[in-house]
Formats: sequence, structure tokens, C-alpha cells
Amino acid sequence: MRKLTKKKIKISPPLLISGSFLLLIFVGTLLLKLPAATTVPISWTDAIFVATSATTVTGLSVFDPGSVLTGFGEGVLLVLIQFGGIGLMAFAMAVLMMFRKKIGLQNRLYLKEAYSQYSFGGIIRLVKYILIFAFTAEGIGIVALTLYWIPEYGLADALHLSIFHVISAFNNAGFSLFPDNLVGQQSDPFVLLLLSTLFIVGGIGFTVVVDVFQKKGFRHWSLHTKLMITGTVLVNFLATVLVLVLEYDNSETIGKLPLFDKLFVSYFTGVTPRTAGFNVVDYGAMEDPTLLLTMILMFIGAGSASTASGIKLTTFIVVVLATISFLRSEREPEIFGRTLRIEIILRSLAITAISVLTVWLFLFLLAVTEDIPFLPLAFEVVSAFGTVGLSMGITGELSSIGELLVSVLMFIGRIGPLTLFFLLVKPKKEHYRYPYDQVFTG
Amino acid sequence: MRKLTKKKIKISPPLLISGSFLLLIFVGTLLLKLPAATTVPISWTDAIFVATSATTVTGLSVFDPGSVLTGFGEGVLLVLIQFGGIGLMAFAMAVLMMFRKKIGLQNRLYLKEAYSQYSFGGIIRLVKYILIFAFTAEGIGIVALTLYWIPEYGLADALHLSIFHVISAFNNAGFSLFPDNLVGQQSDPFVLLLLSTLFIVGGIGFTVVVDVFQKKGFRHWSLHTKLMITGTVLVNFLATVLVLVLEYDNSETIGKLPLFDKLFVSYFTGVTPRTAGFNVVDYGAMEDPTLLLTMILMFIGAGSASTASGIKLTTFIVVVLATISFLRSEREPEIFGRTLRIEIILRSLAITAISVLTVWLFLFLLAVTEDIPFLPLAFEVVSAFGTVGLSMGITGELSSIGELLVSVLMFIGRIGPLTLFFLLVKPKKEHYRYPYDQVFTG
Ligand SMILES: [K+]
Ligand SMILES: [K+]
Repeated sequence: MRKLTKKKIKISPPLLISGSFLLLIFVGTLLLKLPAATTVPISWTDAIFVATSATTVTGLSVFDPGSVLTGFGEGVLLVLIQFGGIGLMAFAMAVLMMFRKKIGLQNRLYLKEAYSQYSFGGIIRLVKYILIFAFTAEGIGIVALTLYWIPEYGLADALHLSIFHVISAFNNAGFSLFPDNLVGQQSDPFVLLLLSTLFIVGGIGFTVVVDVFQKKGFRHWSLHTKLMITGTVLVNFLATVLVLVLEYDNSETIGKLPLFDKLFVSYFTGVTPRTAGFNVVDYGAMEDPTLLLTMILMFIGAGSASTASGIKLTTFIVVVLATISFLRSEREPEIFGRTLRIEIILRSLAITAISVLTVWLFLFLLAVTEDIPFLPLAFEVVSAFGTVGLSMGITGELSSIGELLVSVLMFIGRIGPLTLFFLLVKPKKEHYRYPYDQVFTG
Repeated sequence: MRKLTKKKIKISPPLLISGSFLLLIFVGTLLLKLPAATTVPISWTDAIFVATSATTVTGLSVFDPGSVLTGFGEGVLLVLIQFGGIGLMAFAMAVLMMFRKKIGLQNRLYLKEAYSQYSFGGIIRLVKYILIFAFTAEGIGIVALTLYWIPEYGLADALHLSIFHVISAFNNAGFSLFPDNLVGQQSDPFVLLLLSTLFIVGGIGFTVVVDVFQKKGFRHWSLHTKLMITGTVLVNFLATVLVLVLEYDNSETIGKLPLFDKLFVSYFTGVTPRTAGFNVVDYGAMEDPTLLLTMILMFIGAGSASTASGIKLTTFIVVVLATISFLRSEREPEIFGRTLRIEIILRSLAITAISVLTVWLFLFLLAVTEDIPFLPLAFEVVSAFGTVGLSMGITGELSSIGELLVSVLMFIGRIGPLTLFFLLVKPKKEHYRYPYDQVFTG
């Protein structure tokens, strides 16, 4: 009897995370719909859309937040962003810890290595550490940016702008109070470097930050940290170079900028798609190959248990490694002197497959409901799924149904499609295994 | 010493298949460039493009084959199509047989079941059976279509048109002698049914045909056959319904047709993307959602060891099953009372990943070299990769570099990206295994 009762009140992590996000969006919608929140009345769909966009740290908006939101409205937006960014990071870490605790022997070693600072029950302490990390990073960012902006804006406005943009950056939200996002800042290396550092640190994942701070030297890092750091450096470098080369002569993006600015803008444009979503150029004027590159980067995203979304860089790396090892007739891939288990490959396969399916399905639905050209629509869909917030400028043209569809997609993208599907699919009961059989593929 | 010599002269299947295809394309290009082959002179790139398109049974063309090719040119085209379609099918079957022979114990049972009609050394007999099957199917098709077309075209033309279209259909080439492909036949259920039956049978895979003919009843079929038959029926039904619903009111495609024709054209348009590539409607006028659906179908393709290409229906099914079983916390998927091995999943993952990478890379390159809108270009790229041959009408607008890129893509698509990558990647030497380690994904 007792066992039954216990089972009944147990809420699964996927349900808890989905439920709390929905609650947050619900409350956020109500607050944004209050007359006090906006300078002009907004529709319910617009309120839902922007509340979802903030909670999922996407940054897509159907109106200009800087001019439409009042101080109160901005405050609501920031709270939603903090909960949606840091909150999910803390939650994901807690789940990872509980998960790891259950796995037992095979991961004990890793667990000891990576989380030796926590007792196993110390979820609260973990959350405390995450908050300390987040608020320290944001605090430093706010002070630095305020000091830098005082000469230009005066103390009050500098502080106001800094708080908003630093929180937006660290949480990978990409909302800006400037009407053209950060296009006006494209020749300001200080702002670009500061904000990009914040969103890279916020998006790389808490375990990675802990590892890098606690252990001196690459050799001592966990495999996850090694992959994230190497992968991030490599992908960001490649993306920067590709953007620079592809847009070099495009007079509507970086073509007219001096070389130094070209470099910085290319760097920022290369790193921002992996969830941050600030833009320093007009994506509507970008070359098709660069847009294609950006879509891939948005789909990949950054780190697990972070303020970023997407399928995650490690998922992408595992799929690539598994493919290479298959071609080399190896069963399990090896990297940095470690072997990856089949389970991780199967998980990465599932995440990628479900994500592709989700993106495709929503693109299909929006192609039915919207009268918008294919590329901008596909770009918007991938951007919403990756909770990136970059847009070729069609967000305001979405129909009401379109806004709701994109809202649902941002929600799925942030909680992770796996989380959602775990809610929908019941685990199979144990039974005897059927005999093995062969199928021809490819 | 002897062993070394033997090793040196051994040609790997991937090398053999790639080499023979390249040779065929080379000879085909030379023959098509002969003045006797065309009514007007064609450029070298055009000759390369069409020779590649025929050999890879794609059906894309930079000129109208019906008016530009002479009788000799048509003959060259048909020979290339037969070698590229049936030839690869026979070759793939032979490799499958040899492959299976080596695997030993675990697959003996399946082998006995599926190929009990062959002695293990009977590759030649196998090829004979495949040729008998192919020529029987084509023969029946030619006789039937000729008889049907005699009243309209007279004996000579009816025979001429029938030979060309039946060979083009059975080999999933999709070339037509009519200037608008089969749009003129859209109200002719006999032609549509006959040709679609031919390309479905040709594309489903030789092992499946053997199974269905030899064993009465679903229960006795191999797992591969069960998956292919169920999958084909399901996907074709879904595609037909979706095309009908999505295009129902589109006056430029099926909107103006009577209901009966609407149904037939929807059926044909639903099944032709899985490699055949004949078109009965103008794809340039199609709705975006239908184009998106068609692109997925073109990417999936039909059966292994057949005249069709794409990642193959079974590969797609395995990925879907693996994803579902992961969500159900099962390691290995079960279907029709059988369990699929991890090896098949890893293989399907690799095929899909490499295929996505290939499509993306060529779309990226073509976005750089061509000045063509995104959707038609993406459609053309997927069509070339799946050796389908459907087009939104931009094939003639490709630059010379674009033609060569698409030629390379058709080649990769037909030999299969795995084949190519096996040529490029060396198998790893055996060494001690590194310890297992954990990575967070998603
Ligand atoms: K974002
Ligand atoms: K074809």
C-alpha cells in the first residue's frame, strides 16, 4: 500500500520541468498583458508569444521591446529570462546529479571526479553554487558595462541598459532594448567581446565551468569538458572564418566595414547563433550560404545544463564520432583516450532524430499556415527550435496561428524535445527478448 | 609472399563499383558528345551532366532529351540507364551475398532462409536471376504499353515510346521523351499505373521480390521484406493523402482536374519522389508544404539492392524504431517479433548522418556558386542526391560549375555516400580499448 501511494505522488522530472515552464509562461503572459506593462495595448497572442520567447530565452519578438515595454514590462521580461535561463540550468544539473546517483558503479568514478565538491544529497548546495556562479558573472558584467557606458548614457541609463543586456546575454536570451538589436554596436569591440564572453560562459554548461576553474590543465578535465572546450573553440573559429569569407563583399552586412570591424562582427556573427541570438548585422540581407551555416549552428546549440538550447554540441560531436567510427569498422568511438558507450550514441541518435522531426513538422505546419517565403520561414523555425532568436525579419508578419505554433516550438526547444517525448511515451514492460534478425540498409 | 600478391590485386567492392560507374559515365559522355548523338551540338559539361544523370538513373536534364537526342543518342541513354539501374542492383546483391557469407554463424539462419535458392558460390546464377527478373518485368511492360499506345501513335512510335519509358521506369530513371515529362499523361490512369508499378517493383529491392514470389503469406517473409512491404504501403498511402489534401485547391497542379484524376495524380505524385522522378504536375507551381514533403520522400528513397537510391526506406525505419525504443528505455528495437542488432542501428545512423552532411555540403556549395532562390536549389540538391530527377525547373539555369557539382552529387547519391566514405577512411588497427567515459548530451 505504501509503495503505491509513494508512486502516485512522485512527479517525474520531465513533468516537473514542463509544468513549471508552462506556469511561468502563463504568469508572464498575464503580467505582460497588464496595461502597466506596455506603452501600447498588445494582443493576447503577442503576450503569449513574448512571454514564451522570454521564458525560453529565445529573444524573438513581435514588437520592439525597447519602445513597447514599460519599466515594469522590462522587469517581467528579465525575471522570465532569469528563471528560464539559470533556472533550467540549475534544474538540469540537479537531474543530472540524481540520474548519475542511480546509475551506480560504472559512473561512480566519473561522478567522484566531477562532483567531488558535493555530497550526494547536496542538491540545494548545488543550486546555491549555480546561483553564485550566475550572479557573479552577471555582476561583473553589469559593473563593467555600466562603467563603460556612463560617458555615453549617464549613470542611470548606463546601469539600466547594462542590467538588461548582461542578463539577456548570460542567459542566452538575445533580447535587446535597442530597436535594431546590437547592429548599432557593431563597431564597438568592448560591448561585443563582453556580451559574447557572457553568453559563451553561460552557454557552455555549469559542469564545464566548474571543471575549468577547479582543475588546472587540459589533462585533468573530464571527457565532457574536454569535448566542450575543444568543440567550442573549433566551431567558433570555423564559423568566424566562414562568415568573414562568405560576407566579405556583402555591402549590406560587413562589406563596407573597415577590416578590424569586419573581423569582430564576423566573430560575433559566428558565435551568436549557438543560442545567444543577438544580431550585429541584418540577417535579411545575408548571403544564402551564410544563412545555411547559421541554421546549422542554431540547430547544434551549445552545452548541456546551461542557459543554451539546441541539440547540444556534445550530441553533435557524438553523432560525428559514431559515424567516423562506423566507417573505421569500430563499434564504439574513442576520443581523448576514452571510449564512448553505445548508450550515449543511441541517446544522441534519438535526440537528433526527434529534433529533426520536430523542426521539419513545424516548418511543414507553418508552410501551410503562413504566406512567407521558404528560406525566412525555415530560418525562423530553426531559430525558434534552438531558442536562438535570430530572424530574417518575418516575426512580425506571423499570423496568430503562426505565433502560437512558434511559441509551442520555442517551448519544446527549451525543455528539449526528449523531455517532451518522455512525457508522451510509456516505457515498455520487461518481457523476453525476440530473436535477432537482419535488415539491409543504405 | 603469395598472400601479399593476392592482397595487392584485390579490388574492394567500393572501389570496383565507383570505378565502373566512372568508366560508364566517361564512355557515355564521349558517346553523347558525338555529332551523331544529338540534333544540335551540346557542350562538354552538358554531355557529362546528362551521361551522369542517365548512369545514376537520376533523370535531371539540361536539355529536352526528346528533341535534342537522335535515335543513337537515345540508345546511349537507355544503355547507361540499364547499366546504372539493373547493373547496380545486381552488383549490390552480389556484395550482400558475399558479405553475408563472411558474417558467419549469426546470419546463417537468415541466409538460408532468404537465399536458399542459391549455392554460396552462385554469384553468376544470381546475376542471371536478376536479369531474368528485370527483363521479364520490362518485357511485360513494353508489350502492354505498346499495345495500349498503338491506336494513338501507330506501331513504330508506340514501340519506340514504350521501350524508352518502360526502361526509364523500371530503372527508376524518370527520363521521358515528352517535353513536359508525363504532365500530358496526367489523365491517363493506364500509363500512370503501369509505369508506377514498374518503378515500385524495380525500386523495392530484389530480395523482396524473391521473397514475395516464393513465399505465400506475410508470416513467411523475412524481416527485411516485411519492413519493406509494410513501409512502402504505409508511406505511399500517407504521401498520396497528403498530396491530395495539400494540392486540392491549387489550380496550377491538380485543382482543376476532376476528382478521379485528382486521386490518380496525387497517388503518382506521392510515390514518384522515392527515386522514380517522373512528374505529372509542374513542381515549380507546387505548394511549399508539398515540396517539403517531396524533399523528405526523395531523401528517404526506396529499397536496398534495387534500381532506387536515397538513404533507403529500411534505414529510415531503423532510425525511427531506434528512437522510439530509446524513449521506451529499451536498448534494441523490436519489430514483427524480431530484435534489431545495435550494429544495424549504428550503420543506419552513419548512413543518415553522412547523407545529411552530403546534402548540406552540396547545398552550401551551390548556394555559393549559383544565383538561384533557396527553395528550388535545395529541392534540386535533394533530388540529385536521391537520384530522383524531380526539379522545380532550374536545371537549365545551372552554371557550368553548378552542373559539375550536381553531377558529382548524383554520382555520390547513386553509389551511396557510405561507399564513397569507405574509400576515404582507413579501418583502424586493432589496439587495446580505452576505458569508458561519460558525456552529457541534449
Ligand atoms: K536566444
Ligand atoms: K530518377
